[in-house]
Amino acid sequence: MKFRLTALFIFVFFVATAQTVQSPSKEISVNFKLNSEGKPYYNVTYKGKSVIIDSYLGFKLKDLPDFDKNFAVINSQSSSVNNEWKPVLGEVAVIKNNYNELKVSLLQQSTKRKVDIVFRVFNEGVGFRYEFPKQDQLDYFIVSKEETQFNLTGDHKAFWIPGDYDSQEYVYNETPLSKVDNDKLNLNNGIALKSVGGRYVIQSPLMMKSKDGLYINIFEAAVINYPIMHLDLNINNFSLTANLAPNAVGDLAFLHAPFNTPWRTVMVSDDARKIVSQKMVLNLNEPSKIADVSWIKPMKYVGIWWEMHVGKSSWDYKGSQNAQNQQTGASISVPHGATTENTKRYIDFAKKNGFDGVLVEGWNTGWEDWNGHWKDEVFDFVTPYPDFDIKAISEYAKQQGVKMIMHHETSGAVASYERHLDRGLENMVKYGYPAVKTGYVGRIIPRGEYHDGQTMVNHFNYVPQRAAEYKLMVNSHESSRPTGVHRTWPNYIAAEAARGNEFNGWSSGNPPAHETILPFTRLLGGPMDYTPGIFEIKMNVYKPGSDEQVHTTLAKQLALYVTLYSPLQMAADLPENYEKHADAFQFIKDVAVDWQDTKVLEAEPGDYVTIARKDKNSENWFLGAITDEHARESKVALDFLTPGKKYKAVIYQDGKKADWKNNPKSYEIKTQTVTSKSELKLKLAAGGGTAVSFFPLN
Amino acid sequence: MKFRLTALFIFVFFVATAQTVQSPSKEISVNFKLNSEGKPYYNVTYKGKSVIIDSYLGFKLKDLPDFDKNFAVINSQSSSVNNEWKPVLGEVAVIKNNYNELKVSLLQQSTKRKVDIVFRVFNEGVGFRYEFPKQDQLDYFIVSKEETQFNLTGDHKAFWIPGDYDSQEYVYNETPLSKVDNDKLNLNNGIALKSVGGRYVIQSPLMMKSKDGLYINIFEAAVINYPIMHLDLNINNFSLTANLAPNAVGDLAFLHAPFNTPWRTVMVSDDARKIVSQKMVLNLNEPSKIADVSWIKPMKYVGIWWEMHVGKSSWDYKGSQNAQNQQTGASISVPHGATTENTKRYIDFAKKNGFDGVLVEGWNTGWEDWNGHWKDEVFDFVTPYPDFDIKAISEYAKQQGVKMIMHHETSGAVASYERHLDRGLENMVKYGYPAVKTGYVGRIIPRGEYHDGQTMVNHFNYVPQRAAEYKLMVNSHESSRPTGVHRTWPNYIAAEAARGNEFNGWSSGNPPAHETILPFTRLLGGPMDYTPGIFEIKMNVYKPGSDEQVHTTLAKQLALYVTLYSPLQMAADLPENYEKHADAFQFIKDVAVDWQDTKVLEAEPGDYVTIARKDKNSENWFLGAITDEHARESKVALDFLTPGKKYKAVIYQDGKKADWKNNPKSYEIKTQTVTSKSELKLKLAAGGGTAVSFFPLN
Repeated sequence: MKFRLTALFIFVFFVATAQTVQSPSKEISVNFKLNSEGKPYYNVTYKGKSVIIDSYLGFKLKDLPDFDKNFAVINSQSSSVNNEWKPVLGEVAVIKNNYNELKVSLLQQSTKRKVDIVFRVFNEGVGFRYEFPKQDQLDYFIVSKEETQFNLTGDHKAFWIPGDYDSQEYVYNETPLSKVDNDKLNLNNGIALKSVGGRYVIQSPLMMKSKDGLYINIFEAAVINYPIMHLDLNINNFSLTANLAPNAVGDLAFLHAPFNTPWRTVMVSDDARKIVSQKMVLNLNEPSKIADVSWIKPMKYVGIWWEMHVGKSSWDYKGSQNAQNQQTGASISVPHGATTENTKRYIDFAKKNGFDGVLVEGWNTGWEDWNGHWKDEVFDFVTPYPDFDIKAISEYAKQQGVKMIMHHETSGAVASYERHLDRGLENMVKYGYPAVKTGYVGRIIPRGEYHDGQTMVNHFNYVPQRAAEYKLMVNSHESSRPTGVHRTWPNYIAAEAARGNEFNGWSSGNPPAHETILPFTRLLGGPMDYTPGIFEIKMNVYKPGSDEQVHTTLAKQLALYVTLYSPLQMAADLPENYEKHADAFQFIKDVAVDWQDTKVLEAEPGDYVTIARKDKNSENWFLGAITDEHARESKVALDFLTPGKKYKAVIYQDGKKADWKNNPKSYEIKTQTVTSKSELKLKLAAGGGTAVSFFPLN
Repeated sequence: MKFRLTALFIFVFFVATAQTVQSPSKEISVNFKLNSEGKPYYNVTYKGKSVIIDSYLGFKLKDLPDFDKNFAVINSQSSSVNNEWKPVLGEVAVIKNNYNELKVSLLQQSTKRKVDIVFRVFNEGVGFRYEFPKQDQLDYFIVSKEETQFNLTGDHKAFWIPGDYDSQEYVYNETPLSKVDNDKLNLNNGIALKSVGGRYVIQSPLMMKSKDGLYINIFEAAVINYPIMHLDLNINNFSLTANLAPNAVGDLAFLHAPFNTPWRTVMVSDDARKIVSQKMVLNLNEPSKIADVSWIKPMKYVGIWWEMHVGKSSWDYKGSQNAQNQQTGASISVPHGATTENTKRYIDFAKKNGFDGVLVEGWNTGWEDWNGHWKDEVFDFVTPYPDFDIKAISEYAKQQGVKMIMHHETSGAVASYERHLDRGLENMVKYGYPAVKTGYVGRIIPRGEYHDGQTMVNHFNYVPQRAAEYKLMVNSHESSRPTGVHRTWPNYIAAEAARGNEFNGWSSGNPPAHETILPFTRLLGGPMDYTPGIFEIKMNVYKPGSDEQVHTTLAKQLALYVTLYSPLQMAADLPENYEKHADAFQFIKDVAVDWQDTKVLEAEPGDYVTIARKDKNSENWFLGAITDEHARESKVALDFLTPGKKYKAVIYQDGKKADWKNNPKSYEIKTQTVTSKSELKLKLAAGGGTAVSFFPLN
C-alpha cells in the first residue's frame, strides 16, 4: 500500500508541473518542470536533439528570501499567435510573428510570492521571461543574482568575446567553449576602457556551433529597465548562467512589481542562414510607441569623421585631439576638421553624389580636454567652436537639400548629458538637424555605473524617447548593444555597440572574419552603424611606415553595405578617396538602405555571408558576399529576382590578384544581363567580397 | 665649525618657513611653519591665548604620492584688504570685508608639485584654503584624504551633531568633547535616512566654548565642487581632522588644477555675539555672478504645507500620503491639500494679510508613491494633479498680486530631477512662479552618492545657476548646508539643511534650546527656511492623545522671525489658527525679512539669543529674544534706535504664567513709547520669547 501511495503522489506531481510547448514547425520543443525542491527548470530540443539540457531558473533577491525554489504551479496557459506587422525601417517590409506560448504561473509556497514564466517558441528559437505580477508579497525588490541557466550539451565551437560591462568592441575568438579564458587574451586591442567581469564571463549574443552541426545562439530581447545579460561559463560542463552588469552599489536591478524581465533567447537551427535572418528578437519587443513615424527616414551619409581617425585633422579647435593620439596622449598639431569650409565641402560632396546627410564631429567646445579624466562637465552640446558657423552651415545644407547629423559625444559623462539633453535637442531643432550620433567613450558618470548596467540601459532608452518628442533620430556609439528595442522606439535607428570599422584606422583592427560573425551576434539585436566603405585601405598612406590597415579588399567594403544591415549607412572614407575610384563608388551611391525583402543566400559564422536585398522603394536588388581570410568561390542562384524580369547586373568583384593584405585595392566591375533563372559565380579574394546591383531592364 | 654650520642652517630654515599673519585688530594670530620633514602646520591664538595648537595640513591623493610632506616654502606674500560690498538680500545693507592675507607657496621637493596655502585673518576669525596652481606635475587628481587638522587646546563644551553624510536634521548635543559618542545617541528622532560616518565623526559648523570663555567655531566657506567637511574627533586629545563625505566609488573629490578648496574657518571670540554676527563666511565667497539682480526679492509666504505635517491633508491626490504616515507607512485617508479651491483660500489669505507668496506642496503627480524605494523616476515636475488647475491658479494669484512658490520634491532622485530640470523651470516661467522650493527627502540617485558628497554639492550649486538663467529663486530643503555660496548665486535665497520646525509636528521635535544654537551653527552658512510661526502648538488638537508639540511659547514663535535670519520666511501655521490670534499675528504681518542693519544684543549658545534688526525699506526696527527651557529676564538698551526719534514699541511677550510645556499659548501685547535712551525689560518664560516692533512716531 505504501509503495502505491508514493507512486500516485509522484504521478500527480508530474501532471501538475511538467509542461511542454513547441514551435509552430514542431521542430523546437521546450519542456518546463519543477524538481522535488520546487525549483523550476526547462530544457530545449531541436528536431529531437537536445539543445539546452535541464537548466534552472530563479533569482536571489536582496534582503529577501531566495526566489528560486519551493514553487508550485498554480496555473498554466497556452496560446498561439500568428500575425504580421510592418517595421518603420527594416530588412523586410513585413515581419511575420508566429509563435506558441506557454505561461506557467508559480507560487512560492513559503512566501506566497508569485512569478510567471512565459515561453514563446518561434520556428527560429525560444524566448522566455519572468513576469512578476502585482502582488502584496512582492512590491519593490532588488535582484542580487539572476540564476537563469543555459546548460549546453557539449563543447561547442563558440564565437565569443569577454564579458565586459563597459565594451563590446572586441575581436571575436573562435574556440571550443572549453578553451574560453579571458586571462589568455591579448588585450592590446585599442579598447581604452575595459571592465571584464571575470575569467570565464563572456558576452551574449553568444554564437555557437555544435559538433553535430546545430547553430545555437544565446541572447536576449527587449532589455528595458534591466541590466545587460552577460554569461558565466563553466568550462567543464558547458553550463551558462546569467551574469548581469552590476550598478554603482553592487546591486543588479531595482525592480517594482508588476515587472517583466527581458526575454532570454535560445535560437537554434541546422541552417546557419536562419540565425542571420531571424526576426524573433524584434517580435519579442513591443510595437512602436511613436504614433506618427513619418519623420523617421533611412539615411546614407558622409561626414567629417574618418579624417580624425586617420590623423589628418582634429576634433578640437586647436588641432591637438584625434584618434591617433587618443590613447597615447602624444602631442600633435593638425588642422581642425569641423570648420565651416570643410563642412561645406562635405555638403557639396553629399549633394553631388546623392547622399542624404553629413555628420560633423568636433563642431562643439569640449574636445580640447574631453577624454580620460572621468570629468563631470565636458560638453554643453550647444556651443560651436568659433570656426564652425552652425547657422550658416545649416542654411547652406538646407539650400543644398542635405541633412545635417548632429554629434553629441558625452565622454561617458552621462549625468551631464542628461542635464543638457533638452537644450542639446532643442539646438538641433533650431538648426534643422534631424538626427544625432551620440557617443559614450570613457568611464561613466554617475561614477560606479557601467555602460551595461540598469542605469545606463535606462539612459540609452531614455535618449531616443526624449528625442522622439522633438522628432529626432538617434544613432548611439559605445552604448550597450541593442536588443530590438528599436521596434518600440523606431527613431533609434542604429547603434555601434561592437567593434566597428574605425578600429582598423589606429589599432590591430578587425580581422577579415569579423564581419562574417557580426550578423550572428551583434546584428541580431539591431542595425549597426559599422561605417564601411573605406577605399584607401592601408594606413601607410597617412602614416608612413604604418602596417595598420583595414583588413579587407575594396570590393568587400562595398559588399558590407548589403551584408551589414543598417538603415543608416555611412560612406566613411574621405571624398578625395572616393573621387579616385568613382567607378567603385557608384555602388555606394546606388545601394539602398531600407528594404522590401532580404534573402540570406549563404552563411557560416566566421567564414562567409552572402545576402541579397530588394530596395523598399524600387525594383532594384543588391547583393553582398563577403569572406574571411580565405579566398572563396561559390555559385548563387538569382531566383530571388522577379521571374520574367531582366536585370542589368553590375558586379563589383575582387581583382584576379586581389588580396586583403598585399593587393586590397584591386577590383573589377562588369555588367551583365540576368534573370531569376541565372546563376552568379562568386569569386572572392582572401579577405574579399563581391557587391552586385541589379537594375530591372523591363 | 660643524656646530656653527648646523646652527646657521637651522636659522635659515626658520626664516624661510615660519610665517605669521594677524587680524586687523591684532587679536588673532596665525602662525604657519614646516616641520623637519617638510610637513606644513599652523596654529591660531586669540588675545595671546592658544585656540588651535600646531595642526597639520595636507592631502593623500589617489594613485599618487602623498601630498603632505617634503615641502619647501618657495614664496610667501602678504596683503591686506579693507573694503565693503552690498549683499542683494541680507542682515545688513553693507558688509565690511577687512582681512590680512598670507599666501605661502609650497613646493614638494620630491615631486616638484606645488600648492599654495592662503590664510585670511579677519577680526572674527581665520579662513584658510589650499590653492593648487596650474602645473605640469599635477593635472587631474583625486583626493583620498584631506588631512587638515584643527587641534584644540582642551575638552571644550561642544554643540555637536553626528557627522551624517545624508542629514543635518539632528537635535544638538551639548557635552564636553570627551563625551562625544554617536553610538550613545537615541536615533529615534524622526530622521528617516541616516548615514553617520563613524562613532566620533561630528558635523561642522562645530560650536564650542572653552573653559576660559572663548567661543570657538570650526566651519568652512565656499564649498564648490568639493564635498562637505565633517570632522573626525579624537576624544582623547581633542584633535579634529577633516572628514569629507565620499562619493559612490569611495573617493572624496575629483579635482583638476588649477583648483582652490573651500575655505576652512576658525572663528574665535570671547564675546559670543561676535560669532553670531560674523560676516567672514560671506566675505570668503566670490561676489555675485548674476549681473541683473533686480528680480531677486525677499518673500514672506504662507502655504499648503503644515496641513500635511499635522495630518489634516495629504500630498497625494488620493489622500494617502502625509508627514504623519511617512515613516510608519500606516494607511490613512484624508483630503488632498493642493486643490484649486484650497490654494485660492491661501491666496486670499496671503492677499488679505500682505504676504508676498503662497507655497503649494503636493500639486504634482508622483506623490502617490514617492518615498522610500530608491526609485529613479518619481516626479516629472510639470504634471499637476487633476484637482490642481495650475493655469487658473496662476491667473488668480496674478489678479490678487500674490506670487506662487513652486515645489519640486525630488525624493532624492536627483538624476531624474536633472533630466527634467529645464522643463520644470520652464513650467514655472510659463505660469509665473518666481521661486521654487526644492526637496531631497531620501536616498540619492545616482546610487551610492550622499547628500554631502561632491556630486551633490555640485547639484545643489547647479540648480540655482540653472534657475538664474530663468530668473528664478531657489529655496532648498534637505540639501547640504550652505557655506555662503548665496553671495555668489544670490537667487539661492534660503535653505533648510538643519532640523526645522516641521520635526515638532510628528516626532520628538526640537527642544527649546534648539533655536538658540542655530545662529551659532547652521545659520553661519546662510539663511534658513525654518518655517516658524506655529500658534497651535500642541499636536493633540489634531491628534487626540498626542504629546507631541512645538517646544515653544507662542511669543517665541514670533521672536524667531528676528532671531533666525532669512529673506524667505514662512508663516507656517494654518490660516484658521492665525485668525484665532489676529493680535499676535499682527507681528508676523509687520516684521520685515530684509534688513538695513542688525545688532546682536545678547547671545549664549544653548541658552539665549536677542537680536534687533532694522528694516531695509523703512525706519522700523524689530527685536526678537528667545530662551531655552529656562525662563529668563534681562534688560536691553535700545541704543540702536535713531537718537532723537520716538518709536511706538509693540511688545509681544509671554503671559505671566506662560510655559512651553504647560501653558504655551499665553501671551501679552503691550504698547509703549520708547527712544534710543530707553531700556527694555525682557521677561521670557521657560521655552519662551519676546518679539517687539518699533515704529517711528516722528
